[in-house]
Amino acid sequence: MAKGFLRVHTPDEVYKRLDRFKPLPSEKVSIEESLHRVLAEEIVSMVNLPEFPRSTVDGFALKAKDTYGASEKNPELLRVVGEIQMGQVSDRVINDGETVKVATGGMVPKGADAVEMVEYTDWVDTQTIHVSKTLSPLENVIQKGEDIKAGDSLLREGHLIRPQDIGLMAGIGKTEVQVYLRPRVGIISSGDEIIPIEKTPNPGEIRDINRYAIAAMIRETGGIPVFLGIAKDRFDTIKEKLEKGFNDLDMVIITGGSSVGTLDLTLDVLQTFAGMELLIHGISVRPGKPTLIADVDGKPFLGLPGHPVSAMVVFHLFGKLLLKILSGLSRENVFHKRSIRARASRNIPSVAGREDYARVKLEEKQGTLWAHPLFGKSGAIAHLAQADGLLKIGINEEGLGEGEEAEVILL
Amino acid sequence: MAKGFLRVHTPDEVYKRLDRFKPLPSEKVSIEESLHRVLAEEIVSMVNLPEFPRSTVDGFALKAKDTYGASEKNPELLRVVGEIQMGQVSDRVINDGETVKVATGGMVPKGADAVEMVEYTDWVDTQTIHVSKTLSPLENVIQKGEDIKAGDSLLREGHLIRPQDIGLMAGIGKTEVQVYLRPRVGIISSGDEIIPIEKTPNPGEIRDINRYAIAAMIRETGGIPVFLGIAKDRFDTIKEKLEKGFNDLDMVIITGGSSVGTLDLTLDVLQTFAGMELLIHGISVRPGKPTLIADVDGKPFLGLPGHPVSAMVVFHLFGKLLLKILSGLSRENVFHKRSIRARASRNIPSVAGREDYARVKLEEKQGTLWAHPLFGKSGAIAHLAQADGLLKIGINEEGLGEGEEAEVILL
Repeated sequence: MAKGFLRVHTPDEVYKRLDRFKPLPSEKVSIEESLHRVLAEEIVSMVNLPEFPRSTVDGFALKAKDTYGASEKNPELLRVVGEIQMGQVSDRVINDGETVKVATGGMVPKGADAVEMVEYTDWVDTQTIHVSKTLSPLENVIQKGEDIKAGDSLLREGHLIRPQDIGLMAGIGKTEVQVYLRPRVGIISSGDEIIPIEKTPNPGEIRDINRYAIAAMIRETGGIPVFLGIAKDRFDTIKEKLEKGFNDLDMVIITGGSSVGTLDLTLDVLQTFAGMELLIHGISVRPGKPTLIADVDGKPFLGLPGHPVSAMVVFHLFGKLLLKILSGLSRENVFHKRSIRARASRNIPSVAGREDYARVKLEEKQGTLWAHPLFGKSGAIAHLAQADGLLKIGINEEGLGEGEEAEVILL
Repeated sequence: MAKGFLRVHTPDEVYKRLDRFKPLPSEKVSIEESLHRVLAEEIVSMVNLPEFPRSTVDGFALKAKDTYGASEKNPELLRVVGEIQMGQVSDRVINDGETVKVATGGMVPKGADAVEMVEYTDWVDTQTIHVSKTLSPLENVIQKGEDIKAGDSLLREGHLIRPQDIGLMAGIGKTEVQVYLRPRVGIISSGDEIIPIEKTPNPGEIRDINRYAIAAMIRETGGIPVFLGIAKDRFDTIKEKLEKGFNDLDMVIITGGSSVGTLDLTLDVLQTFAGMELLIHGISVRPGKPTLIADVDGKPFLGLPGHPVSAMVVFHLFGKLLLKILSGLSRENVFHKRSIRARASRNIPSVAGREDYARVKLEEKQGTLWAHPLFGKSGAIAHLAQADGLLKIGINEEGLGEGEEAEVILL
């Protein structure tokens, strides 16, 4: 490959090439610790829920046919033969004209097939009530196994665990769950001009913004960031840090190592790794054109542009994707970008032949979502902190006109 | 208040009443640990970024006027008088007809006011280049302080810290930041029928789903869940656990303690606390009507319905809000619900006079987002795990027609 030449790819081409990476091994954790982890097993229910018919309201269990024709003007009379407490099992059998008091979640006894809500009842005397609403059979009753049947597949392997899923596992008595390991991602900040943020920069030096911004994005995507240090633009330093990263960790990121200036050096170092295959070399995205993705013996390498805004946008598009693949997320989950649609509040120019991601601030006015572009040079980190999302301008479009609608990836 | 009577409120009325709670104290953390915490200070820049003019491209710094009229057919000739490395400071002054090579991020020296991209240059000999594109002054240059000026207010108190904000703080050399403490929230599971999930339920017993689902939702909202145990429906047990919660923690939640059956008991216990003020008693939301919110000496108490689906929906609407207020989020952030709009894929009935939240699965078909309602009784936790969001049916509406658009709160 000629020096200084960047082979350019569209994001869709990139996605296809990243398919080769495999999820990490899995581990067993308690369900309390499983929030936002990825299931490495299918969850199949061993139980019926509920295990017997339950009332979904506070009221009176009875035979629905005893309420037929009941109305406020013409209530039906029923004999109250008892009360079933929450948590109590009753082998009572309800006969015609009889009823028992039940609370929400309480057992509906044999013979009863519906529950009249307390709001539609009145005590006539201590043993008799009026019911004023006609019920259908099974009204206000949840039947045995109606919620979950033994043998039902509840959650699939590759699923991202949410609070409701943890509740579901608790409900079937599952206390531990097999989940994929969280990817440990090494970060190397490269560039002779990069200094630790606690130092005051001399003229020409720049604080290491990327280490912090990219580490936070890794954490947000479920990974564990490990800082491997600042590397001066020297072959040996970069090689040593890359080796450490690929020995100890699951993925390695270099920021600033893929601009044309330092790209060749990073590439030269990568060539010395056995089993290295270069997958992506430049991507037709703005901001963030100089991007490098490689497969180092099954582990992903990602070279990000040095400019913080470009680095974050490229990480958003491709770094998150790599992390999700290593995390074992199912394809459906990996490629699900949480995006919305909004209208451009003014013309936004672009160039056909590349995807453009404009930083936008969102505003809702009378039910319409407007995207206000934040114009700024790609080095301007102040602008990224103001942005709510990235407005996508397709590869074949020459910009968006005022009022035109497009997809916004939420930041 | 009459026994068994639930005073009913709309969600908007509830929001107003919760304004009384105050944020917790703050602590100092390193910016690396500040992701998803809430700023307790305003971030003001002490520095100019950049500190000198920088190039935003790889190319040649020069006087824009020396490129006037340049085109591919008619390139201009310039003399290359040197190269400025990344991180290098140069006091060189560029004169008419001169240029220096600079990398992206490199210093633009005195006298130069624009940078010609390398793509529009050709070496004529080792000291001379052709430039083939006319530049305006400041093109491809980011000026001193253009990104951030000393004294600029960058982030406001009450702001939720995102990765880009951490990058911003790193960029101005801020290593530590003042953030609000994370609320510690006690959870009590009440009900005679509730058992720990590792036990096999006897008939009539139910596993303690809520403890796990609500704990995960607390964690997702930035709080720290603390389990105070399962309380049988007895005055002393509930009082003891509530006392412990209000002594040690910032907020207490009881699940299952607010259905009509056990509501009175919880209320009776609350009345014994000095400085207790009942704020909400029943809310016109389905599922989840029996809800209780109180102020116990400045700390919020939330009583959730016992049914897991109802408990989660009510926590989503009100528990998250309380946690966000304690977390110090600004009003704008507290009331910002991440919602989208979707069309109902079939008729969804409702009743005017209450807000209805239908569990829906979302599907995109040809650019339109459809919400498929999951019909199920409120006890059915299997359905909540299938849902992508809650479709809101307004308090004055009698349901939604097929194809009608409404707001969906993402779960």
